[in-house]
Amino acid sequence: MTLSNHPLDPIFKPQSIAIIGASRKKGSIGREILHNLMEYEFNGKIFPVNPSADVIHSIKCFPSVTAIPDAVDLAVIVVPRSQVLEIVDECGKKGIRGLVVITAGFKEVGAEGQAIELQLKEKIRGLGMRMVGPNCMGLINTDLTVRENCTFAPTEPLMGNVGFMSQSGALGVAILNIARKVNLGFSYFVSMGNKTDISGNDLLEYWEHDPRTEIILMYLESFGNPRKFTQIARRITRHKPILVVKSGRTTQGARAASSHTGAMAGMDIAIDALLEQCGVLRVNTVEELFDVAIGFSNNPFPRGNRVAILTNAGGPAIMATDACVSSKLVMAEFSAATRKALKGFLPEEASVLNPVDMIASANKDSYAYCLDLILRDEGVDAVIVTFVPPIMINPIDIVRAVEQVRKKYAKAVMGVFMARDEFFEEINRVVPDHLPLYLFPESAARTLSAMVRYSNWRSRPHSGVRRFEVNSDRVREILQAAERSGTDQLTIVESMEVLQAYGIPIARYAMARTRDEVFAAARGIGFPLVLKVVSAELTHKTEAGGVAVDLRTEEELGSALDRLDERLQSLGLGERINGFLVQEMVRGGKEVILGMTLDPHYGPLLMFGLGGVFVETIKDVVFRITPITELESREMIRQIRGYALLEGVRGEPSVDFGILAESLQRLSQLITDFDEIVEVDVNPFLASAIPQNSRALDARIRLAVNPKC
Amino acid sequence: MTLSNHPLDPIFKPQSIAIIGASRKKGSIGREILHNLMEYEFNGKIFPVNPSADVIHSIKCFPSVTAIPDAVDLAVIVVPRSQVLEIVDECGKKGIRGLVVITAGFKEVGAEGQAIELQLKEKIRGLGMRMVGPNCMGLINTDLTVRENCTFAPTEPLMGNVGFMSQSGALGVAILNIARKVNLGFSYFVSMGNKTDISGNDLLEYWEHDPRTEIILMYLESFGNPRKFTQIARRITRHKPILVVKSGRTTQGARAASSHTGAMAGMDIAIDALLEQCGVLRVNTVEELFDVAIGFSNNPFPRGNRVAILTNAGGPAIMATDACVSSKLVMAEFSAATRKALKGFLPEEASVLNPVDMIASANKDSYAYCLDLILRDEGVDAVIVTFVPPIMINPIDIVRAVEQVRKKYAKAVMGVFMARDEFFEEINRVVPDHLPLYLFPESAARTLSAMVRYSNWRSRPHSGVRRFEVNSDRVREILQAAERSGTDQLTIVESMEVLQAYGIPIARYAMARTRDEVFAAARGIGFPLVLKVVSAELTHKTEAGGVAVDLRTEEELGSALDRLDERLQSLGLGERINGFLVQEMVRGGKEVILGMTLDPHYGPLLMFGLGGVFVETIKDVVFRITPITELESREMIRQIRGYALLEGVRGEPSVDFGILAESLQRLSQLITDFDEIVEVDVNPFLASAIPQNSRALDARIRLAVNPKC
Repeated sequence: MTLSNHPLDPIFKPQSIAIIGASRKKGSIGREILHNLMEYEFNGKIFPVNPSADVIHSIKCFPSVTAIPDAVDLAVIVVPRSQVLEIVDECGKKGIRGLVVITAGFKEVGAEGQAIELQLKEKIRGLGMRMVGPNCMGLINTDLTVRENCTFAPTEPLMGNVGFMSQSGALGVAILNIARKVNLGFSYFVSMGNKTDISGNDLLEYWEHDPRTEIILMYLESFGNPRKFTQIARRITRHKPILVVKSGRTTQGARAASSHTGAMAGMDIAIDALLEQCGVLRVNTVEELFDVAIGFSNNPFPRGNRVAILTNAGGPAIMATDACVSSKLVMAEFSAATRKALKGFLPEEASVLNPVDMIASANKDSYAYCLDLILRDEGVDAVIVTFVPPIMINPIDIVRAVEQVRKKYAKAVMGVFMARDEFFEEINRVVPDHLPLYLFPESAARTLSAMVRYSNWRSRPHSGVRRFEVNSDRVREILQAAERSGTDQLTIVESMEVLQAYGIPIARYAMARTRDEVFAAARGIGFPLVLKVVSAELTHKTEAGGVAVDLRTEEELGSALDRLDERLQSLGLGERINGFLVQEMVRGGKEVILGMTLDPHYGPLLMFGLGGVFVETIKDVVFRITPITELESREMIRQIRGYALLEGVRGEPSVDFGILAESLQRLSQLITDFDEIVEVDVNPFLASAIPQNSRALDARIRLAVNPKC
Repeated sequence: MTLSNHPLDPIFKPQSIAIIGASRKKGSIGREILHNLMEYEFNGKIFPVNPSADVIHSIKCFPSVTAIPDAVDLAVIVVPRSQVLEIVDECGKKGIRGLVVITAGFKEVGAEGQAIELQLKEKIRGLGMRMVGPNCMGLINTDLTVRENCTFAPTEPLMGNVGFMSQSGALGVAILNIARKVNLGFSYFVSMGNKTDISGNDLLEYWEHDPRTEIILMYLESFGNPRKFTQIARRITRHKPILVVKSGRTTQGARAASSHTGAMAGMDIAIDALLEQCGVLRVNTVEELFDVAIGFSNNPFPRGNRVAILTNAGGPAIMATDACVSSKLVMAEFSAATRKALKGFLPEEASVLNPVDMIASANKDSYAYCLDLILRDEGVDAVIVTFVPPIMINPIDIVRAVEQVRKKYAKAVMGVFMARDEFFEEINRVVPDHLPLYLFPESAARTLSAMVRYSNWRSRPHSGVRRFEVNSDRVREILQAAERSGTDQLTIVESMEVLQAYGIPIARYAMARTRDEVFAAARGIGFPLVLKVVSAELTHKTEAGGVAVDLRTEEELGSALDRLDERLQSLGLGERINGFLVQEMVRGGKEVILGMTLDPHYGPLLMFGLGGVFVETIKDVVFRITPITELESREMIRQIRGYALLEGVRGEPSVDFGILAESLQRLSQLITDFDEIVEVDVNPFLASAIPQNSRALDARIRLAVNPKC
């Protein structure tokens, strides 16, 4: 084995490791790490370092790292916090390039710890070292040429194709336990601790081209650099699935995470958007993470979402069907040939529709024969095999039969075996590379659904972001004028002009200051009309009664003006309005919202949803990180719950989606071009069946008070 | 032990059991049942029956049941289907009153089996016997004075306070496996099979006053008699929780269940409504069923939803917080005294807010001391204790410490121990009545949430159904007239009249046949107006353009009439309309829908939701089984997602909920009074802030074509 030139190699592929703070005391971290390295049969040399011991765990111990005669690639530091900086200096003298700092008490415990952590960071950067931790529980590389178990966890890892990184050390211990139990093997396992130097992004890039790592799992409590994550993840998910549990989904959970990690919390909705846009599969719980991981780790990717269920009992198959349909999978329909062949083979009481219920008498031969028939059917993309053990039928035999058949087809096969613990233990021993096995049908269905989603991501076209010709100079003028006047809120007229400059269609309007101007404007635009009070002090216009709609005649316009005047007087706003907006009244479309909100951590989020008051009540909106592609703009529209409403009900025509999608992309471009825009609210945007009738009816744009800070 | 007089006692508390079809062949059902009865040390006498054996499993065997010299209470029948009827006759001669028929091949395999099942049913009814099965895997009574394990399942049950009934035999085997593993003990376990005689309802009534059964669990694939279930369950849930998994939730799953059980499938939404209205907790999966059951089985009911989390590691506590908030629990706020006491005890790095993170150094004393402080806080209703095992701290000790403290308080405490399998096995052995323990935080939160929901159900007032004074004679006239004319669809005018007769407010309207009549009607009602074409051939009026709204002047009315005429001519409907409906135009409310739909199996379902086209697109509706109480009418309104919209946004006043609730109850009364009404669609009903402005704007009522069949 030779060291390549990757700066992380001294950490993950060391030929010699010093354990600084090694200890003789059983149960101490300094002893357990040493023990695990030996027990796992590390291929290189181990040097315990402890000034007060001569030998530890049968290995010669050195008083300091500089006293070690051989070269050392990696130092594992387990000393108290007060000694860490000094030890790092010594490691520098010794020429060590890799560190794993187990020691805790840094950023996570407050200001003093944070200050020391900063010194540590500067020191290792200055010495040209790379570091995992501090405040971590170590790392594992299962490569047979390395065999590095540098953790103090009591469970030895299995070798496999999963790279796992965890931001929680405590959880890391639990994860190793559970992984062993569910037969999930790792290529690498890394407890990242405070991510002071080596981050999740570094590990992603390190594993990107690692042939042993076929699936990447992440447990995260915070994102350090979400923009960079997006770039890297988008690239990797084209050929390797990434699964993420990001805890702190709720406001309260995020608060708990912030106080725990000291990291800033962003909006969960932003994280969802970010992960979806880079093809990362987000799962909600660690339990689901494992379910999905074992599904991926030993199966081809399904080519579609059509599932068949093969069973020896009704109950589990019904539950599996429910779970599949709930997970947006489709129950496969068999060809006539498949049905006929099944009917010829199975007893009369069996069901040859999907689910195929072979009844309790089914044995290994029935499973093998029927699974073969089903997998051969071109209408089937994946199969869930469920089995409840009747007396005298050994589930191990069923797995063996399934294994022989499934290997012949490039289709996903999942097993639901409602069997005893003993079976799950034994099967891992006797058929180590068996199909993914679950106790409950819901786990199998959920996993298959995730695999289908990932499969769709891999095969979808990856279009670029389109640039439109726009009048950005005009926008710059408007924004600068607003800045000069010291306001952070554009008027409706300014907001509409900004949209117009970026090619987003707006309703025809005119500003009017006097009663005469209002009538003149009305004659210019034509009835019916909408009349709006323009005032910085009225934001939710309908709230203050500052809007009159559907005015059909000069008479109605006149009385509307009277009513508005009266209303403004009663609010004491008579003198403080900018004037009236006279706007064409547009009928017959659907109100949607196009918008943007700024997440403090993740940046601008583009929003699309049902408009009007529904934004505040039904909250039927979807978000995307900007900039968005054409495909993403279409997906945003399709993903709202009220999509059917836009498609038209009761024989109505569908709204034109092209203009909506383009408007979203143009808004995305506006937001990308002007950092100082912190909020956009185009509500309502009237989506019509006729593209040229679709337009923004109202808009609000807010600017950063001081975009420089 | 003496037999009481309950007809199910011969089955569940027998003093002697005959196993007809007992066998010497290991692994055969006839041998395994005998073996299980002996192994579990049945307190009474066992008589194997088999004409071709003299002794089985060391017990004297009889050639027939009539040859047994002693009295026999229960016969377990394992013979082939062809012999079952004859064997039952012999049992009748012997005076046996209880049967468990394991034999399969009846209703579940088709018409022939169904015919034999019917004969079996008639025979046992004629002989005055009660029967579990056929097509079941037996039953268990763990009572120490009985000790009846009459199943062929390989897992021996634990004794406990859970009564479990399963409609799936295969699943029953799996359930016994899982229960043993999670330390869940049973009072009774019954595999119901085809429910030919003894149904779930019979078992519910049998367990209703059984002191050993404190929680009832059901796995169902179909409801035999939902109306009776509702009555019984509503009574029982006042003092015992009932948890149900009903599979076949999706259309496809229901289809699979129907083909499996031969039972008719109802709408899942009806089952949800039914279960909710009788206080039954529906859970989606068997996994969740066990999670929730172990939560209930060893905890007091929480008095509120305020949860505290106590932990030794951040990650699991963050996940627990997310899970609690997602499950509609609230994070408790500690009193100043609690915070101060925690601060005084815990190290500086710890967090004394909720979650309380005692950091990895926390030992059993920390858990005991802090849990005591937290449980004492009056702002805390329940606690989730999470623990990830650090080196040198034994999780068993932590459980023991928690046990000592939690017993002092009448509050729910759940444990999340992310520990190895060995811990879960050992803890069941060394601390058998320990707190509910879960591997993942989501299970604990979900369970606590179910416990809070049940607690709320128990403590809520149970009002009766209010009867309103109505004009049912008028409705009868209208329905009879429709019946005579051979139509199943009332016109809008008839429909509105029906509503009016039941005191549901409707918009003012008049029918007009000629142009002159239209103008006269308009003058009577006053502008603005709505004009609708009334025709049996136009149902979705807006679809055909048969409606003109917001007509403000006679001129606008005239041109609307012209447009409608033209439209009707172009559709060839000129001659086939009943006339025009002239209706007052009502402004300023929110459109909702009140409706009713008939489920073929569960009966009439009352519906409430957002109205207009949103019914078809957003589908924001809730259902209830009729008749509904005042409280239920209020809950229906509160449970729609768009409730906030009705409460008013942007400073609008809330709609009046009183009139809505009353209208729902009146509609419920209408449906209860007239069986022949199979569909009601009051859409939109305009809900206004002013009760007297709230009214139905449109209505459709459909009748059964022939209500007698």
